[in-house]
Amino acid sequence: MPLSWFDRVLFSGVQRAAGPAPVRLAMGTPDHSVTTMPSEVPTVWIKDRAALRALARNPQINFGDLYSEGAIEVEGNLVDLIERLYKVPVSFSARIYSKWLSWLESNSPRGSRDNIHHHYDISNDFYKLWLDPQMVYTCAYFPEPEASLEEAQRAKMDHVCRKVWLRPGETVVEAGCGWGALALHMAGQYGVKVKAFNISSEQIAYARERAKRVGLASRVEFIQDDYRNISGRFDAFVSVGMLEHVGKKHYTEMAGVIGRTIGDWGRGLLHFIGRSRSQSMNPWIRRRIFPGAYPPALREVMEFLEPHQFSVLDVENLRQHYARTCECWLKAFEQQFEIVKAQLGSRFARMWRLYLAGSTAAFRVGSLQLFQVVFAGRECASQPWNRSYLYQPRGEGEEQECARAMS
Amino acid sequence: MPLSWFDRVLFSGVQRAAGPAPVRLAMGTPDHSVTTMPSEVPTVWIKDRAALRALARNPQINFGDLYSEGAIEVEGNLVDLIERLYKVPVSFSARIYSKWLSWLESNSPRGSRDNIHHHYDISNDFYKLWLDPQMVYTCAYFPEPEASLEEAQRAKMDHVCRKVWLRPGETVVEAGCGWGALALHMAGQYGVKVKAFNISSEQIAYARERAKRVGLASRVEFIQDDYRNISGRFDAFVSVGMLEHVGKKHYTEMAGVIGRTIGDWGRGLLHFIGRSRSQSMNPWIRRRIFPGAYPPALREVMEFLEPHQFSVLDVENLRQHYARTCECWLKAFEQQFEIVKAQLGSRFARMWRLYLAGSTAAFRVGSLQLFQVVFAGRECASQPWNRSYLYQPRGEGEEQECARAMS
Repeated sequence: MPLSWFDRVLFSGVQRAAGPAPVRLAMGTPDHSVTTMPSEVPTVWIKDRAALRALARNPQINFGDLYSEGAIEVEGNLVDLIERLYKVPVSFSARIYSKWLSWLESNSPRGSRDNIHHHYDISNDFYKLWLDPQMVYTCAYFPEPEASLEEAQRAKMDHVCRKVWLRPGETVVEAGCGWGALALHMAGQYGVKVKAFNISSEQIAYARERAKRVGLASRVEFIQDDYRNISGRFDAFVSVGMLEHVGKKHYTEMAGVIGRTIGDWGRGLLHFIGRSRSQSMNPWIRRRIFPGAYPPALREVMEFLEPHQFSVLDVENLRQHYARTCECWLKAFEQQFEIVKAQLGSRFARMWRLYLAGSTAAFRVGSLQLFQVVFAGRECASQPWNRSYLYQPRGEGEEQECARAMS
Repeated sequence: MPLSWFDRVLFSGVQRAAGPAPVRLAMGTPDHSVTTMPSEVPTVWIKDRAALRALARNPQINFGDLYSEGAIEVEGNLVDLIERLYKVPVSFSARIYSKWLSWLESNSPRGSRDNIHHHYDISNDFYKLWLDPQMVYTCAYFPEPEASLEEAQRAKMDHVCRKVWLRPGETVVEAGCGWGALALHMAGQYGVKVKAFNISSEQIAYARERAKRVGLASRVEFIQDDYRNISGRFDAFVSVGMLEHVGKKHYTEMAGVIGRTIGDWGRGLLHFIGRSRSQSMNPWIRRRIFPGAYPPALREVMEFLEPHQFSVLDVENLRQHYARTCECWLKAFEQQFEIVKAQLGSRFARMWRLYLAGSTAAFRVGSLQLFQVVFAGRECASQPWNRSYLYQPRGEGEEQECARAMS
């Protein structure tokens, strides 16, 4: 395709923006005989001048949008390409844009409702296509890297329950319960009573139905409400994959909820996507995928736990496990790609492919981290002596005790 | 003993200060027939009016001094008494005094030298009386609560080495190496080369002698110098029980040392006494035992690691293990009490008994915590997949590989 002088300037501008990342840029549409022979260096094909101009104007947002529309094609491995791009420093204008987005994406109770609705209420059937059978949409824990996603999600739920040493008959509150898998696992496998909160109407409806189906409706109450409205006292507070949606401005409220929920005697676990250094979420992800999302640095979490004098017992970084989880999701998604496209359109399908590939890359390079933080009130007694029990099979006695509590 | 009106006012003032703690106050010296029958509630005997007045003037400092001099006696369990007192809120005047102490105890390179000399250069023979045979003067790790102190100190050193996954042939820098046990353990058991820093002359002389004796002088270099003067690149940075002595004002320097030492590719471990909430050290401990000491909140440690974009991999709270360690030390100390008294005087012996009892109590009630923080540079490769390996015996292959590196 012949380019004007102006387009050539733009083209080299985009090349400069991609900076030191070893990727190739090309104008046009890839020749399919080439696509089938992936080169070592991935190539970004820019369909036409309009796409080039949009990309030059705002690469951070428009790369994702153009890819979704099909105006950008990637030859080679998509995850690999994004990994390379992740290593390019973020420009000044991208930072300004990011600040402006933050201002738009309020996480007030109403803002949260809109933000959560955007992502989690797409349709349960869509998520069923590529999540594990239990519908767990957070980082899994692979006891061995070769474990299946289903095994790893189950292992994650056990890891969480054992980290806060749930005992039969105790009470637990869960903030942000997804489709209810963890709440039901805690009640069914550990004999506790659970109140589980979520503002996504589709998820809550699904979770309630499921509780009835497995006969746990009397032990797990699913409540469609904001985490700020949690009341009552519990032995443990658990939140898996919700803190990312709380937003920096609301951490004090979040800490207040935890404080009044478990007091000085209980214990808690926060499982969340975080950062090694405080920084905004990628603007395209925030705009198209997760409005209002902010992955905190560990320091920011310590900051809001400290005034309550919680004793931090354990922090584990599961970044590598999230990269593996995303790989599993992406693989399943690719297998269902044509179905997603037929049901929700090509733009949506490509957008989600890019999001899953981008997340895989972000956890691989460490741009995102996954933290599990366990803490206890300062008067909390009977803490485990060390962590070795987490790596031993559950005792038979423990399982019997649970069965007794349930009967 | 008949008390004047003024003394009675003082006495009830002290009682008020002890506040809701269930302890008994009495004037005079305990009758020995009573001492042998410990009551449920410990009793603090205040010898005379002078002691009462000093205690009323500044209980935070003078309780310790009066106990050391024998002007206060405790009937009942000393650890138990301090546990009860720990639960009393600190008064405003104690806070002011504490600020004034901070100002005196500079941790500049010269200040650090004086502060460290004060504690660690008492005499190696004194520490030999009650530490484990390897002379490890930091929190041990008891695989089982019944393990001996010697086993637990060895297990702690392995825990540290394995947490930063040392591999034969690698290089390690240790900031604050005590009498050299860990440096020699790393070199001898894990096949690494170590540079170990300490500003205590007595400790360094002892460690060098020991390295020669065990034939590791070519693999471990003991350097008598301030941590700020560490230079060179290493695969790992390790510091066990030194951060408490660094002081808040010097955290940025400390982080700078770690940053230039391991860069983006290495990994590090900090093991330190900390707090659930930022607060000064007990003023008597700071004045008589550990000048310049400050146990940070976890948040403060995250604050200084964050600018270097270290990825925090693991945080473990070993508070219960430090309470157990102090119990072991106190028990051994009591067995040697008469010898300590004969060699270093009654005042010193009682001061140290109070310090060890006070530390036991502080870790039991959670006023002090013990954190091990593992982190890695953002480009650090080959991180362990999960933590299960820490709870399995070391592989034979691993030990053979180490032997090869050493030969």
